[in-house]
Amino acid sequence: MTEFDPTAAQAARERQDSLTKPPGSLGRLEDLAIFMAGWQGQARPRLDRAQALVFAGNHGVVAQGVNPFPAEVTALMVRNFAAGGAAINQLCKIAGASLSVVPLDLDRPTDDFTQGAAMSPDEVAAAMHAGADAVDKDADILILGEMGIGNSTVAAALAASVFGGRAEDWVGPGTGAEGEVLDNKRRAVAAGLARHEPVSARTTLAAFGGREQAAICGAVLRARELGLPVILDGFICTAAAGVLIRDDADALAHCLIGHESAEPGHRRLIASLGMQPVLSLDMRLGEGTGAAVALMVLRGAIACHDGMATFAEAGIA
Amino acid sequence: MTEFDPTAAQAARERQDSLTKPPGSLGRLEDLAIFMAGWQGQARPRLDRAQALVFAGNHGVVAQGVNPFPAEVTALMVRNFAAGGAAINQLCKIAGASLSVVPLDLDRPTDDFTQGAAMSPDEVAAAMHAGADAVDKDADILILGEMGIGNSTVAAALAASVFGGRAEDWVGPGTGAEGEVLDNKRRAVAAGLARHEPVSARTTLAAFGGREQAAICGAVLRARELGLPVILDGFICTAAAGVLIRDDADALAHCLIGHESAEPGHRRLIASLGMQPVLSLDMRLGEGTGAAVALMVLRGAIACHDGMATFAEAGIA
Repeated sequence: MTEFDPTAAQAARERQDSLTKPPGSLGRLEDLAIFMAGWQGQARPRLDRAQALVFAGNHGVVAQGVNPFPAEVTALMVRNFAAGGAAINQLCKIAGASLSVVPLDLDRPTDDFTQGAAMSPDEVAAAMHAGADAVDKDADILILGEMGIGNSTVAAALAASVFGGRAEDWVGPGTGAEGEVLDNKRRAVAAGLARHEPVSARTTLAAFGGREQAAICGAVLRARELGLPVILDGFICTAAAGVLIRDDADALAHCLIGHESAEPGHRRLIASLGMQPVLSLDMRLGEGTGAAVALMVLRGAIACHDGMATFAEAGIA
Repeated sequence: MTEFDPTAAQAARERQDSLTKPPGSLGRLEDLAIFMAGWQGQARPRLDRAQALVFAGNHGVVAQGVNPFPAEVTALMVRNFAAGGAAINQLCKIAGASLSVVPLDLDRPTDDFTQGAAMSPDEVAAAMHAGADAVDKDADILILGEMGIGNSTVAAALAASVFGGRAEDWVGPGTGAEGEVLDNKRRAVAAGLARHEPVSARTTLAAFGGREQAAICGAVLRARELGLPVILDGFICTAAAGVLIRDDADALAHCLIGHESAEPGHRRLIASLGMQPVLSLDMRLGEGTGAAVALMVLRGAIACHDGMATFAEAGIA
């Protein structure tokens, strides 16, 4: 497992303090450059190669009437990704990330977690492997996103299981649940929490699903092995990666949260993780869209870190 | 004067609602696309040509010991801009903006506003003209920034004069004032406010300065004539443009505030204007840097608005 390199980070801090600006005046951009330096283990981190991975899955819990859209939309949106028509396609293009979409057995939804385990241990392992295997080992940054009708219900269950609290603390509108659908969502999460008491990351994923969540966990773990910094997206992506905290409190140290989603549970989740999102743009789409916008900010941070003159170079005493 | 085109904005809203995402789920990105549509008067706004203008000036009030840096740094930083070594150079490159730096009589600082008017009416007019003339009439978006040792003191005086409150409500560290320097800054602003009671935008600029502030006002007014949306930067830039509110409460309707600066007065200023900044990244550098980062977000907004498939195009019912 790669650890943060304090020497590279310190060298990056010293470089920041030598650049032609009042020290600290680039705020979060300075922190981001230093974060990248520490995790890449070099004082001048690179962002030449950015990979975006979007994992897609289907969920048996949709049988509980938790989503206003039918499960078929997952596959249709995967087709839309392939055709270049989704938001994440546009944002990856403009942020300079290479996008891969990984559909995970869309015709084989996980089981309904209100009735039993969503996945077998083998299914969890397979999905985690799929996530890990999709990571480009030569990338400089990894962006993670997801698509899956019903997966904000899964996210709420995962977050409640790992970080505590009641179903209603974590359930929100997702793609637009309201009224009865929102009630169904709360009931489903409460039923899942009453049924399952998992204690590890893998048993939590097995209990609630889903495949895209397990793939995100696999990708986050592989990125850590590679010393590859990660930008997580919003509520669903963060809840998925947050499952890893169950095994290792430090598991997300190499991750940024790209943005604070408008999905209400995200704020609570971010607070539980003690992390600070890069952006807050009232987005709640998923697909990695908030993470892709954050990549642009990160590019700004690295451009300043790398391209600015020092006071000495500029002849300013 | 160009006004917001509600028909174009409505067409943009309808397009947003037809794109392959839950309505509203791109949050601020949707608002930004619609803002651009309304001000450009077209349902599919363009961002092909982005202009960044940085105005630089010097200020007689530095005689009051309000800044830890000597006034010579303004010219040295202008040289650094020309050499491509400053933060704004890197951010414009990565955000796709063409940068022009306009130094305004750096060897002829405005007069010390604690002792009398900072500028004559003719000097105000000349600086406003310089700002207006620098605007590229073919631009799709205009980013404004500034550089000038002592100009956070000027900004505090302008903001207090226009929006009320005491010197200490608006004075902050700027480039790094603390202790005695910060006390001097508060005293200078209080003295300026006691001496001057301007009632119009032009007399306010004459009272407190400076040339770069007047140039920002001139550029904002010219952009409005052209139907050219503007991204303001942080505290100093917003305080400068805010002077226009004195003549017309609607003067900044075509402007975005790129980011909320870490300079404490900016939050108060934003609240006084009733505006919502695009970003909050703890930046406090000036030069237009926060506005340039916001341009990247705006590019993301326009890319989604323009490039996404509609539900009909994607074959999703």
